Amino acid sequence: MSAIPPFFTEYQALVNAELGRLVAGDGGVVARSMAYTVLAPSKRVRPVLTLLAAELCSGSAGRAVPAAAVIELVHASSLILDDLPSMDDAPLRRGRTSNHLEFGEAVAILAAVALLNLAYDTLARAYEAPLAARLCTLVAEAVGPGGLIGGQAADLLAADQPITFEMLERIHRGKTGALFSAAAASGAIIAGASADAVAPLAAYAKNLGLAFQIIDDLLDVEGVPADTGKATRTDAKKTTFVSFSGVAGARQLATELCQTADLALAPFGRRADRLRTLSAFVASRSW
Amino acid sequence: MSAIPPFFTEYQALVNAELGRLVAGDGGVVARSMAYTVLAPSKRVRPVLTLLAAELCSGSAGRAVPAAAVIELVHASSLILDDLPSMDDAPLRRGRTSNHLEFGEAVAILAAVALLNLAYDTLARAYEAPLAARLCTLVAEAVGPGGLIGGQAADLLAADQPITFEMLERIHRGKTGALFSAAAASGAIIAGASADAVAPLAAYAKNLGLAFQIIDDLLDVEGVPADTGKATRTDAKKTTFVSFSGVAGARQLATELCQTADLALAPFGRRADRLRTLSAFVASRSW
Repeated sequence: MSAIPPFFTEYQALVNAELGRLVAGDGGVVARSMAYTVLAPSKRVRPVLTLLAAELCSGSAGRAVPAAAVIELVHASSLILDDLPSMDDAPLRRGRTSNHLEFGEAVAILAAVALLNLAYDTLARAYEAPLAARLCTLVAEAVGPGGLIGGQAADLLAADQPITFEMLERIHRGKTGALFSAAAASGAIIAGASADAVAPLAAYAKNLGLAFQIIDDLLDVEGVPADTGKATRTDAKKTTFVSFSGVAGARQLATELCQTADLALAPFGRRADRLRTLSAFVASRSW
Repeated sequence: MSAIPPFFTEYQALVNAELGRLVAGDGGVVARSMAYTVLAPSKRVRPVLTLLAAELCSGSAGRAVPAAAVIELVHASSLILDDLPSMDDAPLRRGRTSNHLEFGEAVAILAAVALLNLAYDTLARAYEAPLAARLCTLVAEAVGPGGLIGGQAADLLAADQPITFEMLERIHRGKTGALFSAAAASGAIIAGASADAVAPLAAYAKNLGLAFQIIDDLLDVEGVPADTGKATRTDAKKTTFVSFSGVAGARQLATELCQTADLALAPFGRRADRLRTLSAFVASRSW
């Protein structure tokens, strides 16, 4: 177990400040519901990835902060939806009662939709038009049939039936990999990186995301709510990487995915060391 | 009662063709759920308004078709959400079983979110970047706290408690007026209209939208499901314009709102006659 790298906490603070501004809201119940999930304690791995990718591509982290926050808004939206009674029916998230248990189902659904809407609104306002349009397309792909929505739909269909390892991987590429990938790509694009730099960073992030998901499954089996911020063993009826490969096998898979992620960083040499620190940290499971 | 104007059906056909392309989908359950509501029989008043506004401002209707379809995607998304058990719990919509009764609640929610996502994706792909960014901002405002989401939240809070006429008007400005207004404004903006032309068209559409909503309330009291495509008298426990003003009073209010709408068209002279035909048609309640 390693400690959180110091640069990571600095980036978290940048993201948290921006998120606080974006969900300050009008004091209404939907605004409070949005802030409840967005501002709950979180590792902010996805938005920090955006800032690290921007910096690696010689851009300023500051200029990527709105896009980083957008990635986290989209993520928070998906968390609220995933926890709904008709989905995973989860009672805890980020160490708090689930959004719909706190605000009621109707308000929680409106908050989730409002967060996605705010994400696009923020992109259109924060960046010059050509960049904003490109980032909108990138986010839309990460949310759509090949991303969060497609992954969650496949996850629902897979519940209570035997699935293959390939199906499980496809579910998590959609539910986790796509947004991780968009997080890194958006940072690189904002920094003006060429496709030659965007593609390996997106590949790094996709594999890191899958590793992150497997570790999530491991924590569900091994963790306690005080550490993970959500109810554990909720996945008992679901097929996970752990039920497929066992605890030891899942650990090894996560380690291998982090190594594969790091391979994609080769073109960047030592400049990508912070990303290597991030993947080592993910692999160490010290969240 | 007047017949549907011939130009109206031509515009409906343009919109329907574009919507068919956009929700063709991947054959998955979420794609089918999206198409189910989007392609159900509908008057397409909002997207037709977009095309009429574009044409009035000397633009081609064809160039405005993607934006018109986007307005309808957003509208369909809101219909699915409004009908959910935690919201209005409505069994019928557009002459069909509600989306969640057909596909289950989880898929219906994913479809609603996917439709909003597709709306932004379509704007970013269909238009050159500066226009796409401006339209994104316009749509985001119509969906957000001052629009659909704010209106629906106010509607939920108002259920089962006495509300004032002003509150009722605010609810419907959000739930109906904001998207009508964005529909007209987007058409005008795509045609390159100046703010001097966009503002009166948005004002016309906002008042037309309120009239349209009041007529919806009247049909809920007086109509039969075969005509309205949804269950009637579902609003019995809700305060509506009809329960406030009675049937005769609500009819008069709708007529007055259509007249107010038409006043905003004065700067356009005879060129706005098709919009006047539309408001006369709305006022005639012959849907």
